[in-house]
Amino acid sequence: MLLLPAFRGARPSGLINGVLFAKRPLSGLCTSLVYGEYGDPEKVVKRKQEAIPKPEGKQVLVRMLAATVNPADINTIQGVYAIKPTLPSIPGNEGVGEVIEVGSEVGGDIKPGCRVIPRLNAWGTWRTHALAQYTDLIKIPSDVDLAMAATIAVNPGTAYRMLKDFVPLGTGDVVIQNGANSAVGQAVIQIAAALGLRTINVVRDRPEISELKQRLKDIGATVVVTEGELRKSEEVSALPKPSLALNCVSGRSGTEVLRQLASKGVMVTYGGMSRQPVTVPVGSLIFTDITLGGFWMTRWNKEHYDHPKRQQMLDDLFELVRCNKLKPPAHSFVPFDSYLEAIKNAMPKEGMLGKKQILVF
Amino acid sequence: MLLLPAFRGARPSGLINGVLFAKRPLSGLCTSLVYGEYGDPEKVVKRKQEAIPKPEGKQVLVRMLAATVNPADINTIQGVYAIKPTLPSIPGNEGVGEVIEVGSEVGGDIKPGCRVIPRLNAWGTWRTHALAQYTDLIKIPSDVDLAMAATIAVNPGTAYRMLKDFVPLGTGDVVIQNGANSAVGQAVIQIAAALGLRTINVVRDRPEISELKQRLKDIGATVVVTEGELRKSEEVSALPKPSLALNCVSGRSGTEVLRQLASKGVMVTYGGMSRQPVTVPVGSLIFTDITLGGFWMTRWNKEHYDHPKRQQMLDDLFELVRCNKLKPPAHSFVPFDSYLEAIKNAMPKEGMLGKKQILVF
Repeated sequence: MLLLPAFRGARPSGLINGVLFAKRPLSGLCTSLVYGEYGDPEKVVKRKQEAIPKPEGKQVLVRMLAATVNPADINTIQGVYAIKPTLPSIPGNEGVGEVIEVGSEVGGDIKPGCRVIPRLNAWGTWRTHALAQYTDLIKIPSDVDLAMAATIAVNPGTAYRMLKDFVPLGTGDVVIQNGANSAVGQAVIQIAAALGLRTINVVRDRPEISELKQRLKDIGATVVVTEGELRKSEEVSALPKPSLALNCVSGRSGTEVLRQLASKGVMVTYGGMSRQPVTVPVGSLIFTDITLGGFWMTRWNKEHYDHPKRQQMLDDLFELVRCNKLKPPAHSFVPFDSYLEAIKNAMPKEGMLGKKQILVF
Repeated sequence: MLLLPAFRGARPSGLINGVLFAKRPLSGLCTSLVYGEYGDPEKVVKRKQEAIPKPEGKQVLVRMLAATVNPADINTIQGVYAIKPTLPSIPGNEGVGEVIEVGSEVGGDIKPGCRVIPRLNAWGTWRTHALAQYTDLIKIPSDVDLAMAATIAVNPGTAYRMLKDFVPLGTGDVVIQNGANSAVGQAVIQIAAALGLRTINVVRDRPEISELKQRLKDIGATVVVTEGELRKSEEVSALPKPSLALNCVSGRSGTEVLRQLASKGVMVTYGGMSRQPVTVPVGSLIFTDITLGGFWMTRWNKEHYDHPKRQQMLDDLFELVRCNKLKPPAHSFVPFDSYLEAIKNAMPKEGMLGKKQILVF
């Protein structure tokens, strides 16, 4: 069990989702991680301490409870991601905090004690406290597992939108995906199962393949096959051809998944883990009438900043969590002070699925 | 000037669009080209003669006036096209005929003297006479140039649909295409110009490049560049980024054209002249939000067999022809008897743009 420091506004010492928060004298200081140049995250990310600010007007003071360290954060710090924040910048796109103080003009449902998540990416979740405009926060339920609350926005959000926005799907319809054991992949399996959809899940071959297949079936996968098994799998050919393919690998795996699609099917690309482009046979476009699109949660959030669809999505996702139909991915809580360990463990690695690193404060 | 035989129902000898039809004693026989096995078109296509049939009920007897020999016809006969007709089969997807006799139950506007084109592909236009259900024919204006009437359905139809169905375009918007000097490409240039759109036209480099550029500009191209010039062309960068790309080359050329698209742009693939797949950078899908689709006139016609959009399209295209805004591609009329010459000339050849081969009867 982790013993973690608590800061101003923290509740009395006790368990929050299995993490013990110790009561500590109010230090009056907050800590942020900051980088002033792009580069190796283990080198360029530094600690910065300053006085805990006081919220004024429409501002809210948030005490962070948990923040994920995602591959996209690593790539952003390396300067190789599509978004290049103005430097210096506080990393962290995802996390959950608790409102501890509000300015005089704060309205809506944001009050002290609320749990909140940031409305936009690159908000900077890797800090003990944040001063934010209340309109940049979304209130979420307080009864949700901390790991789930910290990780719900990006990966389950991506899975949810890709299942909802590209192809009208009904009960029994089939979706195929590669990288099925990624965090998004696992969310796809669970959300699809809850929607009554069937999933063909493609994973890379590996020594512990039987365990992985069983684990994905346990969370709702219909079929799990390795890339090598896909073409000749009887389980796959017994299902109707999928009308939606979700691709986070690209390269050869993307092409194989695309070839499985029914006429007029859609392949949505949301990653390129193989570091290869997507290669599309001309006949798939002309004769099979396949459409290819892409999905990026960051853009969707920006384009739906306060769109009702966004609240609907969170309501739906938290409802699945409540019914135990959506669980967080395998994860490790890492004390904020040990952030270098979390960064090291989150670095993209070939062939292995690390646990999701979640900083706790 | 060509001297061509005429058959039962032919008008008195005279000029039709510059082709002299000689009056000949009624033979009572009609000739079809037929192939009974897939293979080399110069070898497997045979002549077949039989008595001219009499239309009954809903049938119509059509005397063909002109029929194109397209690369898709060649590929169909070779057995390498997406459509494999039941054999024996009469080749020819495109052509124009004149109704010379109708059955007692023929309705609509189909009457003797009408000019008609087939409603579906693989109807078999390489024959002097055809017996058809009147519902399988579309009446077209009689005052249209023969070469234009014979070639309007597939290539200008493809260009028209791709400009209409994928991206809403308004005056001044920019469309990019490769293979710009293909028959479809030339139709795209002319239809786009008539719609007030601007076009970036990519062609392969060749010795007579200046003449080609001028020729495409003469029919309405805004900018014409070689594949090598595309990336650094100031004429191209002076235009807004295109929201629609039309790709008939695929391979590297397809990727280059795709890279020019504006955010949320669409690339429509309708050919693979390079015999390479379409390669899509992952970032174009995820971050630039590009969509890729395909277009196939054959499928569109099948799905819009008697849809009002189809008549609207033909009305629009014939109106452009009437205003001299749409002209037929460079072509050669080849007497039906010399069909082997037309087949030879229509065989896909590397690096040169042959004249469209049109059989005349």
